[in-house]
Amino acid sequence: MTALSSFFNPRSTAIVGASRAPEKIGNVIVKNMISSGYTGKIYPVNPKEEEIEGLKCYPSVERTPEPAELAVLSVPASRTIEMAEMCGRCGVHNLIVITAGFKETGKEGLEMERALLEICRKYKMRLLGPNCVGLMDTHSPINASFAAGFPLKGEIAFISQSGAMVLSILDWSFQAGLGFSKFVSLGNKADLTESHFIEDAAEDPYTKVILCYIEDVENGSHFLDVARRASQKKPVIILKSGVSQAGAQAASSHTGALAGSDVAYETAFRQSGVIRAGSMPELFDLAVAFASQPIPGGEHVAIITNSGGPGIVATDNIEQKGLKMARFTRETIEALRSRLPSESNIYNPVDVLGDAKADRYFYSMDKILADPGVDCAVVMVCPAAVTEPLETAGAMIEMKKKYPEKPLFAALMGGAQLTEGAELLSKAHIPCFTFPEPAITSISGMVKYGRRSEMSSQPGPLKYNDVDPKTIKATFYDVKKDNRLVLLGSEAVEVASAYGIPSAPTALTVSPEEAAKQAEQMGYPVVLKIASPKIMHKTDVGGVKIGLSSSEEVRQGFIEIMDNVHRYLPRVVLHGVEVQKMMPKGVELIIGMTRDVQFGPLIAFGLGGIYVNLLKDVSFRLAHGLTNGEIESMLMETKAYTLLRGYRGEKPADISSIIEMIGRVAVLVTDFPEITEIDINPVFAYTQGASALDVKITIS
Amino acid sequence: MTALSSFFNPRSTAIVGASRAPEKIGNVIVKNMISSGYTGKIYPVNPKEEEIEGLKCYPSVERTPEPAELAVLSVPASRTIEMAEMCGRCGVHNLIVITAGFKETGKEGLEMERALLEICRKYKMRLLGPNCVGLMDTHSPINASFAAGFPLKGEIAFISQSGAMVLSILDWSFQAGLGFSKFVSLGNKADLTESHFIEDAAEDPYTKVILCYIEDVENGSHFLDVARRASQKKPVIILKSGVSQAGAQAASSHTGALAGSDVAYETAFRQSGVIRAGSMPELFDLAVAFASQPIPGGEHVAIITNSGGPGIVATDNIEQKGLKMARFTRETIEALRSRLPSESNIYNPVDVLGDAKADRYFYSMDKILADPGVDCAVVMVCPAAVTEPLETAGAMIEMKKKYPEKPLFAALMGGAQLTEGAELLSKAHIPCFTFPEPAITSISGMVKYGRRSEMSSQPGPLKYNDVDPKTIKATFYDVKKDNRLVLLGSEAVEVASAYGIPSAPTALTVSPEEAAKQAEQMGYPVVLKIASPKIMHKTDVGGVKIGLSSSEEVRQGFIEIMDNVHRYLPRVVLHGVEVQKMMPKGVELIIGMTRDVQFGPLIAFGLGGIYVNLLKDVSFRLAHGLTNGEIESMLMETKAYTLLRGYRGEKPADISSIIEMIGRVAVLVTDFPEITEIDINPVFAYTQGASALDVKITIS
Repeated sequence: MTALSSFFNPRSTAIVGASRAPEKIGNVIVKNMISSGYTGKIYPVNPKEEEIEGLKCYPSVERTPEPAELAVLSVPASRTIEMAEMCGRCGVHNLIVITAGFKETGKEGLEMERALLEICRKYKMRLLGPNCVGLMDTHSPINASFAAGFPLKGEIAFISQSGAMVLSILDWSFQAGLGFSKFVSLGNKADLTESHFIEDAAEDPYTKVILCYIEDVENGSHFLDVARRASQKKPVIILKSGVSQAGAQAASSHTGALAGSDVAYETAFRQSGVIRAGSMPELFDLAVAFASQPIPGGEHVAIITNSGGPGIVATDNIEQKGLKMARFTRETIEALRSRLPSESNIYNPVDVLGDAKADRYFYSMDKILADPGVDCAVVMVCPAAVTEPLETAGAMIEMKKKYPEKPLFAALMGGAQLTEGAELLSKAHIPCFTFPEPAITSISGMVKYGRRSEMSSQPGPLKYNDVDPKTIKATFYDVKKDNRLVLLGSEAVEVASAYGIPSAPTALTVSPEEAAKQAEQMGYPVVLKIASPKIMHKTDVGGVKIGLSSSEEVRQGFIEIMDNVHRYLPRVVLHGVEVQKMMPKGVELIIGMTRDVQFGPLIAFGLGGIYVNLLKDVSFRLAHGLTNGEIESMLMETKAYTLLRGYRGEKPADISSIIEMIGRVAVLVTDFPEITEIDINPVFAYTQGASALDVKITIS
Repeated sequence: MTALSSFFNPRSTAIVGASRAPEKIGNVIVKNMISSGYTGKIYPVNPKEEEIEGLKCYPSVERTPEPAELAVLSVPASRTIEMAEMCGRCGVHNLIVITAGFKETGKEGLEMERALLEICRKYKMRLLGPNCVGLMDTHSPINASFAAGFPLKGEIAFISQSGAMVLSILDWSFQAGLGFSKFVSLGNKADLTESHFIEDAAEDPYTKVILCYIEDVENGSHFLDVARRASQKKPVIILKSGVSQAGAQAASSHTGALAGSDVAYETAFRQSGVIRAGSMPELFDLAVAFASQPIPGGEHVAIITNSGGPGIVATDNIEQKGLKMARFTRETIEALRSRLPSESNIYNPVDVLGDAKADRYFYSMDKILADPGVDCAVVMVCPAAVTEPLETAGAMIEMKKKYPEKPLFAALMGGAQLTEGAELLSKAHIPCFTFPEPAITSISGMVKYGRRSEMSSQPGPLKYNDVDPKTIKATFYDVKKDNRLVLLGSEAVEVASAYGIPSAPTALTVSPEEAAKQAEQMGYPVVLKIASPKIMHKTDVGGVKIGLSSSEEVRQGFIEIMDNVHRYLPRVVLHGVEVQKMMPKGVELIIGMTRDVQFGPLIAFGLGGIYVNLLKDVSFRLAHGLTNGEIESMLMETKAYTLLRGYRGEKPADISSIIEMIGRVAVLVTDFPEITEIDINPVFAYTQGASALDVKITIS
């Protein structure tokens, strides 16, 4: 029993707006309910009819023999509110609103949708839709939708934000012979969202693979929790569209500019273990693979082919997809050598030659699948004169039984000569393609999923006990009082230091004497910078002096900077001059944060310095649920990591202090949601420790 | 008439090794020749038979009524040489050797293949194979192969290095309904190669698209010439496998290490206008697109759909593939607004809504295809209740007639409900897919081809009149006499300067006094570097002094360097100390050259400095046929280009002098094939001019 069980398995279902006219949705739904084999009570509701499709028809939902557990509404939009209210009053648990004309049509529709949701809240009804196709479950069974047909029974749950996608995939699935456990059309997601149905499908014993098409996520943090938990139980594969709607994000920071609009989704999927499909064909190839094959134990693929060329094509593709060609043990090689013709290639890709009949495939597969270095195999068949496609397919099926833990894929490269073999394989649930590439893409997705499952056993979220929120609150108080959103450098350093982020000592000074005094305290050399959040490029206006090494130079520098800036920008408010201790050079990095509307703080790490936007060597993670292991993997995705490990004979930098610095930034921005952006650029990494040189913090 | 016409259209064909036994290749070929409708004479040759498949059989190729123009040999490998000799003696023009057991089996086979080729040369016979399936032409017609069947007539020539690929694709093509003009199985390519058949297909009036599968190219420069000319006439699409056979290339230089094994092919294809397919499905999708649709005038795609979600998926894919969504004119938008329902999306992607019948598609397509801002369109149909797939397909066919210059693709997203429509479209040669992505990949390939065709009208190859080969010959003479392969820095600068490549003045000196004298002549400051080709990292052994600004400092520096290096590396031969004028800092670049086995000099350009291998911001071009336009496009592919144009307020660098520098390097390495590698790193680019700071040249 899941929280949404009563949607898929209601004792009774009212169809409000049921109709006798076959072209009406209200008629299709009644027919679908009947033909699905639904075992609960069906109550068609329509005040003008006595009977629909052989069932007694009721004038209103209040007049059914018992309150229906589920009501499917297919009435004009203008009457939906009234009908929903009536359902609520008489004790309906769940609503599916098929009717369109809500949020998707504009302001009035949105108001109507809000009213509908309020009614559901009032009566504690859960709502699917409005503006949806409905839902189907082949195991309960139920077809509370107006789709043309009912899917084959299977183990794939398909949850779709697009109703048309449901209709398309259903129609396509009959031809492809693909079975489903559930189809859910989410519609406008006024109440129940992808997260709810992913959570439900994760609990559903009849569902092995969760497939989603979405255009956006309703509640980022709910989604992350649900997706993370679901992915640990079974694969969640998502096609997320809307990637190209760029520019939604304000980009006043480096980090913001680098993140773009799709990075948060990409990161959210990766961190929660979701497999992202790159296209519609890939979505369904992955579904078939996950539904029919076990997760491979590793990334080592064996290729068995009766032709060299296609074998090389497959080998290329394996490397392109980040997989590895399996290396056989000596026993396997000897076994192959002893029985295959001498012209065969007995190393991977194994070429059993064009004159191979089924027995040669059988023998080779048997030896290769037994090899501990082989995690999965792709068997390729070209139609040569003596090829036995049907018998070879039979051999594959036997092998599948003998080695159930090793995923097996077929590429039958041809047409009519191989059709029977392909059909046999499909029936035996061995994924079969015309060309090898889709098989290898599928394996790649499965291997990724396997790796992530391993990752999930890592230590819990970050926590530091030496943080000082009080100092930060005080600083923010002052900044807000000053009507600013951007912190001065000295304030930003104070905030960073309060959370244990090591920064170059920095002080705001308002006179040459004060500057000199601060410099004396820090020790020379020092840097002077004009303090004004309005000035972006301080060097260009003569606002920076570096390498000052006496109190006299500092006093003089203060005066010159003030003069310069006054001359360039006479109207800009200046807060004084910042004195900063000049730090030794280290590996130049950037650590930053931008806040995503859906998923919250998005942390960036990469090569720093003035070329950060040019080089774009940056990786991202969400602060939500971040672990040290994730931070380490984040580092490893960048070229900066190569520098940190010691490039061209340099000593390695103190990577653990960089990991800690990123972790502390993540905790800081989680504790203070008013921080909208952070850019720490550069951070200098040393052989021991690290230091933030320039910290920019923006609050809201 | 092409050079190979007599292969595809011989007056008479002898089949040597013809057989009566149906399981023998020698029987299949005779049957294939007869059933293809071949109109020339067929002479089966077999001393043991009187008659084969109703044709008179001859005891030897010398006994046929006339010398056969073409002989197809299917006899044991051991008898092939003898039979070929006999064919040559009696005046056969062309040989197809089906027989395997040659180069592919090892050393003995290779010798036999050489002997076979010698015989062909002796008698001026051309040879296809050995170890091939044969060839087919649907227009002449002829089927001189042992393939099971004969392709449908069409306009695609398929040239394949893999025989199995020929059999696979032939079988698959019947099911896909795809027609071909020719199939050529290249086999071992002992004589005729992909280049010969690409050249032939480019001339063939019945061929519209040239499709190749290759694993390697036999003669790089012949291939480049042929492919470039062929691509100007019709699309040449190549699937090149063997990408993953890395490490073949020696990598003693930066440039060599960056190039990897596939870069030369990638570059050769791009520079010669070949479209490279990324996978087998893509190869055939592209073939269908090019064969049936005109080349789009630009990159602007319109999407017409009856469902929002799939429309967004297609929009994403268009941006991912580097295409653009078309923007409609005001007239188009008004026309759509005036007739489509108010909830429709009248901007691209156009959503005609789920209740659209064929007439709404018809109207929308008519307006959209007429829009001058639309270069091509993808029409998507989801199976909603009222959808009219067949009529919508009919509307597409009418539009195709009305707007023949605009490519049109269909994505019928579903199964049985849309099958009839899909069949209608296929018959009308409108490419039809289940999902939109393959259509968009095809459009992307066509747009690339269109762009390259435009590029081909550029000025001819590079030429400089102020070069001084004599100095270089003299230098190489000395270096070779000294038994070295690596030039000293001063020698390399001399070579570069002789070809007009601006370099920092550099002189080799052997005493402190000589060094001081050279420094005086150059002007201060100068840099001193130990001169020894054996020392890779000169700084590490105390072999470099920078910023010396008086003769005293230079003298002292000379002595210290020699002392340091003697201490670190007492046994290394030192040539002295190089004095180099210290140049002002500029944008740091690398220009390099590595020599590819097949395609000759491969020129590299990118971000220079010590991080060149880390940043990998490098683009490549072959020196063969290089133009200034190509060099410019090479620059534009890199991040270095962004720096050169003036990054973050910097003044732009002198891009034309960088282009010239690359051009001069290309001419230098073409004129002197003994140069195996060049690394110029860094090159400093200035607002005026540029300068090579460190030139490394290796010769053979």
